[in-house]
Amino acid sequence: MPNPRLAQQIAFIVEADKLKNVLRRTPLTDASRLENSAEHSWHLALTALVLIEYAAPQTDVLRVLELVTVHDLVEIDAGDTFAYDVTANRTKTERELVAADRIFGLLATDQATRLRALWNEFEEQQTPESRYAHAIDRLQPLLQNMQSGGGSWQTHGVTRVDVLRRMSPLQTELPEVWPFVLEVIERFFPQKNAAT
Amino acid sequence: MPNPRLAQQIAFIVEADKLKNVLRRTPLTDASRLENSAEHSWHLALTALVLIEYAAPQTDVLRVLELVTVHDLVEIDAGDTFAYDVTANRTKTERELVAADRIFGLLATDQATRLRALWNEFEEQQTPESRYAHAIDRLQPLLQNMQSGGGSWQTHGVTRVDVLRRMSPLQTELPEVWPFVLEVIERFFPQKNAAT
Repeated sequence: MPNPRLAQQIAFIVEADKLKNVLRRTPLTDASRLENSAEHSWHLALTALVLIEYAAPQTDVLRVLELVTVHDLVEIDAGDTFAYDVTANRTKTERELVAADRIFGLLATDQATRLRALWNEFEEQQTPESRYAHAIDRLQPLLQNMQSGGGSWQTHGVTRVDVLRRMSPLQTELPEVWPFVLEVIERFFPQKNAAT
Repeated sequence: MPNPRLAQQIAFIVEADKLKNVLRRTPLTDASRLENSAEHSWHLALTALVLIEYAAPQTDVLRVLELVTVHDLVEIDAGDTFAYDVTANRTKTERELVAADRIFGLLATDQATRLRALWNEFEEQQTPESRYAHAIDRLQPLLQNMQSGGGSWQTHGVTRVDVLRRMSPLQTELPEVWPFVLEVIERFFPQKNAAT
């Protein structure tokens, strides 16, 4: 038997595997299946590395990688809450807090505290790193929906107003990327009353 | 249309989505399906964060996260080469170099060079960070196989000697974890000529 601390770490790593079975509403770019939250978390890390030049000055991209690595772990218990599901979002915080207690609590106290602090930081949006991570977490599903012909927007009847609101952190956090985001929204949700 | 640099970045991020369709030989812990290389990369990042206390002193865990985020991208073209497939491993380097040229080459030169350098660092195993990342990349499949009742070891008739050789980086890089690794190997590959 490994020592108690290592046993806790292994139990935590093994438990984390379950995030690969948590499905999001967003499909893969080839629309072959829904994306899971584990592979989504990896894709955010890569996206964060690639787009860091558009982030606020002094944003520490490596700190961002830590945040995105842990940001969805609570979904193992709480499930993925669809961004556009108003009812489910009312109970999201409560469900995720209970999940965080259990999941980070698998680790020894010092380590549980440290990893939970990363999750708290992501949720609280008070640091440049967490705001950038949050913006990337909005952009990546936009790209998946764009590539898959509308993805979760189409499947779930999401409106232009909903998407504009959902994407708004990109306007402030990645202003140089915002015109591209607007182009994509215009392509999938053309304004009906545009001047003719 | 986004500016040419952003267009390249978006093309790269979209291309990376294909890693979610590259299947490894290792199953999920519940044995429900094979793991893909994107979710595996995320699991390595989390494992690296959790076990960093066992790494060589001064190993920069955030640098490790960068390495594991890019380390399997070449598999989009080259496929996942099963660790225990001797024939496929003869051509692995060549296939992966061609893949690296194409995939990192989707980015503007400065960024392609920077991300490819991360991949090179992981492959060359000359830094504490790449050696630790490499060791974690051996440990994570061991945990998946352990939890799924033997996983790829059982499916592909892998031997005790093969596994011991494959896991050997853990002995040098994570010596405090090594006794646990040996225990798992002993459980799945008991020594037939053990003293009685």
